[in-house]
Amino acid sequence: MADYILRMKGPDAKGLIYRVTQVLFENKCNVIRQDEYVSPDDQFFMRTDFSFEGELSKDKILGDLQKNISFDALEITLNQKAKKNIILFCTKEHHCLAEIITRHYFGELNAHIVAVVSNHEVLKPYVDKFGIPYHFVNAENLSREQHEAEVFKITDLYTFDHMVLAKYMRILTPTFVNRFADKIINIHHSFLPAFIGANPYKQAYDRGVKIIGATAHFVNDMLDEGPIIAQGTKEVDHRHSAADMAREGRDVEKMVLINALKLVLDDRVFVHGNRTVVL
Amino acid sequence: MADYILRMKGPDAKGLIYRVTQVLFENKCNVIRQDEYVSPDDQFFMRTDFSFEGELSKDKILGDLQKNISFDALEITLNQKAKKNIILFCTKEHHCLAEIITRHYFGELNAHIVAVVSNHEVLKPYVDKFGIPYHFVNAENLSREQHEAEVFKITDLYTFDHMVLAKYMRILTPTFVNRFADKIINIHHSFLPAFIGANPYKQAYDRGVKIIGATAHFVNDMLDEGPIIAQGTKEVDHRHSAADMAREGRDVEKMVLINALKLVLDDRVFVHGNRTVVL
Amino acid sequence: MADYILRMKGPDAKGLIYRVTQVLFENKCNVIRQDEYVSPDDQFFMRTDFSFEGELSKDKILGDLQKNISFDALEITLNQKAKKNIILFCTKEHHCLAEIITRHYFGELNAHIVAVVSNHEVLKPYVDKFGIPYHFVNAENLSREQHEAEVFKITDLYTFDHMVLAKYMRILTPTFVNRFADKIINIHHSFLPAFIGANPYKQAYDRGVKIIGATAHFVNDMLDEGPIIAQGTKEVDHRHSAADMAREGRDVEKMVLINALKLVLDDRVFVHGNRTVVL
Amino acid sequence: MADYILRMKGPDAKGLIYRVTQVLFENKCNVIRQDEYVSPDDQFFMRTDFSFEGELSKDKILGDLQKNISFDALEITLNQKAKKNIILFCTKEHHCLAEIITRHYFGELNAHIVAVVSNHEVLKPYVDKFGIPYHFVNAENLSREQHEAEVFKITDLYTFDHMVLAKYMRILTPTFVNRFADKIINIHHSFLPAFIGANPYKQAYDRGVKIIGATAHFVNDMLDEGPIIAQGTKEVDHRHSAADMAREGRDVEKMVLINALKLVLDDRVFVHGNRTVVL
Repeated sequence: MADYILRMKGPDAKGLIYRVTQVLFENKCNVIRQDEYVSPDDQFFMRTDFSFEGELSKDKILGDLQKNISFDALEITLNQKAKKNIILFCTKEHHCLAEIITRHYFGELNAHIVAVVSNHEVLKPYVDKFGIPYHFVNAENLSREQHEAEVFKITDLYTFDHMVLAKYMRILTPTFVNRFADKIINIHHSFLPAFIGANPYKQAYDRGVKIIGATAHFVNDMLDEGPIIAQGTKEVDHRHSAADMAREGRDVEKMVLINALKLVLDDRVFVHGNRTVVL
Repeated sequence: MADYILRMKGPDAKGLIYRVTQVLFENKCNVIRQDEYVSPDDQFFMRTDFSFEGELSKDKILGDLQKNISFDALEITLNQKAKKNIILFCTKEHHCLAEIITRHYFGELNAHIVAVVSNHEVLKPYVDKFGIPYHFVNAENLSREQHEAEVFKITDLYTFDHMVLAKYMRILTPTFVNRFADKIINIHHSFLPAFIGANPYKQAYDRGVKIIGATAHFVNDMLDEGPIIAQGTKEVDHRHSAADMAREGRDVEKMVLINALKLVLDDRVFVHGNRTVVL
Repeated sequence: MADYILRMKGPDAKGLIYRVTQVLFENKCNVIRQDEYVSPDDQFFMRTDFSFEGELSKDKILGDLQKNISFDALEITLNQKAKKNIILFCTKEHHCLAEIITRHYFGELNAHIVAVVSNHEVLKPYVDKFGIPYHFVNAENLSREQHEAEVFKITDLYTFDHMVLAKYMRILTPTFVNRFADKIINIHHSFLPAFIGANPYKQAYDRGVKIIGATAHFVNDMLDEGPIIAQGTKEVDHRHSAADMAREGRDVEKMVLINALKLVLDDRVFVHGNRTVVL
Repeated sequence: MADYILRMKGPDAKGLIYRVTQVLFENKCNVIRQDEYVSPDDQFFMRTDFSFEGELSKDKILGDLQKNISFDALEITLNQKAKKNIILFCTKEHHCLAEIITRHYFGELNAHIVAVVSNHEVLKPYVDKFGIPYHFVNAENLSREQHEAEVFKITDLYTFDHMVLAKYMRILTPTFVNRFADKIINIHHSFLPAFIGANPYKQAYDRGVKIIGATAHFVNDMLDEGPIIAQGTKEVDHRHSAADMAREGRDVEKMVLINALKLVLDDRVFVHGNRTVVL
């Protein structure tokens, strides 16, 4: 018996749930959990978690669905539940990276870390302890394009489903973003869209906020503007300096990134324009 | 065009979603939102929110469902979306009562308040402002049974779907609870099951907790033991006396009660043993 | 025996706490609670809550302090604890106004509401129930300046310590803001500085945020830019339309405004540049 | 220039703050932050963070304080700010242990980990990576007393200020607790006092709670009854099995334990009967 995830996205139509569940029923699939959502602009999203005894013919299911639904505009994916491959990027801060690596080491993460890439060497000794390849790609004296060209030589060595920017403090070129379109998850150290850009905790301190936050989002070619997956907040007060806010914020950042990563690894996140639907 | 809520609860079986959505599809019902849940003990829960143009024949839908599903154990209800009638009980504290009445007055609550019943007169002047009948049933010199008998004379005057105990500080007899089985919603001023019974804030202070809470739950014949609908919490510290905790706690209580009430009024809450399923 | 609040703000210097507590000790004042804060730019803030038996001579205390401290730059206030007078402004939304009025009616608010001013009539029937003067100042066919001139005729009738904008949906002129400098408390329906300006929930929906918020702040002449007193947040998801977010947000708004108002009424808030210190 | 922490606890008296700050002022100590609290039972708590240029004579300060205050009942400690030594206890679960070790490795924790003690071997490979001594003390075939006698042989090898039970799943004898009186910090996987004892997540599931929590507390000889230092909560719903609650709860546990540990390591926690005062 194996578990599968069927995901659908596309224009809504009457009877979609009925037609899909009919196919699953007639193919003796056992639905464990099913969630649907129809957006105000009439897009249909569905995630079905089902089990199947014996060997499932994906072609048969997809063929039956195609016959029964026949909406060309629908995006459909059907995959056996399995660990995803992820590649991690970091700079000097350890908290997000170590959180992911610790969970990976203890088998808590539904993913395999293929490598860590960084523009600094500082986190290499930590990563080495866990036997994960660490690639230091020095950015000194290189243009942004030249540095990314060096990075691509590394990423070309690996196959991965998602790239996690675990506090990778480099601005990405559109070339980079497009090369890994829809694959990049970033943690931004503010409650977006507040404090876009550099030094958000300094900005937050100057503004005198009473709550700080962090935002995990997909990266598109607009800085800090991609679809938000998860956010978290924490109360602060006048006693918190910008440095204190940064320190407190790191706890929020790592938990928000982990929460977002879990959702993505469980195939629960759909991108819908600049928003996400989480089923 | 009108909106309907179909609710189902019973033993799980393969194809249930398919069979139900088939009936809705063939009867030209337009599903707006559908949520399902299967519990670890294989109970199936489903809530479907759908619209229908013209006049819906409930008998036709229910008949088709019965034919298609034919599981006698399933509880099925199908109702047009409509305001429920509620009756409020209170004692001396105003915060939960005023929150409900204010929302009712401004049309925010999906309910009609038929009356307020109290064992004290203190809140009468406030309730009178809103033209809601206020019944003072004095408990002095009466046994619990005698007082409840007087209360029943009042409740018999009204028809209501739910009874909301908005800080009604009386212990109910099994007779009372059974008379209004599954209808009574209570707000308890603690994070149940911590601090069951009297003076929970005093208990919380003595125990030195750093977080206080409130719990909205259905009432069964075990004190503070019914199925929980919603809970909320708030941080406190050593500076909070028991009285301070009570004051802060009142803000949590009223919001938790309102949240629970909204869920119940929207037909989103199912009782499952001593737990609730909220779809 | 009466309770007093002593507040000090100014350049820090060695021994300030010592010198102040010496004066209080020698004048037989009984310190109940004292809080101090020194900002990174070396500003000293202190709030002392003390009781005194008999009749306190404020002049004597202030004179002794002046002798003992002799820093001209210090702002010192000493007042007996007492209810403040507040004036409320609103437009059409009731939630913040009703929250304040309900607490006022039941004696929970450390303030006396002198009047309500509005650019609409819709909330008058509600306010009338509580015997609070309601002044409707129609803005139709008036310039912003003309309308404010009419409003000033009303505010001139009253003495008040604070003006609370309980969802008053008018942009204020610098004339208005300056006239009531440091007195105006506003509730903004976003987690500032995110979504400054109009329709913040629409903006939040479009951005696809997973958390919404509200901000209570003093008003200065920069739109939505004054010192923040309190903030609050609430989780939302993809199912929330902009209207749903607005509805959920109202619960956050009213609680954040009440929390900010309580702090201000208890003399616990100091303005420090564009930030607040809350002792 | 060095930083010092002065802590005082004892019966309240008029002028205490004045007398203490006088001594600090006259000894040219520069107060950075000072917090005081007087409990309803008239106990005075004070924590003063001050810096001193040159070499501070603790004897001189304490002598002056003694002269000026002369209350024998006051407990006074004066220490230079420094890293504390801590010893960690664990069983099989890694999350709390790894959180502490990761922060320690990256220099985030104001403490030095002298050793890890466990009744299981499973976490040894992880701890070994960080060069921290790991002592496996097998409990098989030993009485509780016999096992603890073996543990004491280990703890006798080290000097430590605090013992952190990072999910050490053994019930301690009074002998053990008394031996390390006031030194033991435990993380309990429930929102105490709810679900005292074994399997709190199973208890929480059965009770159908909508919020789970965790509690860090000092250990005294009553099971799960010591003074609470910090608590945290997280929302759950009907979809969470007991195992899901345990998994979600682990994130709360480790953050609550870290928060409590930081407070203790910063000398901010006072025990007051069965409560804590956190300044």
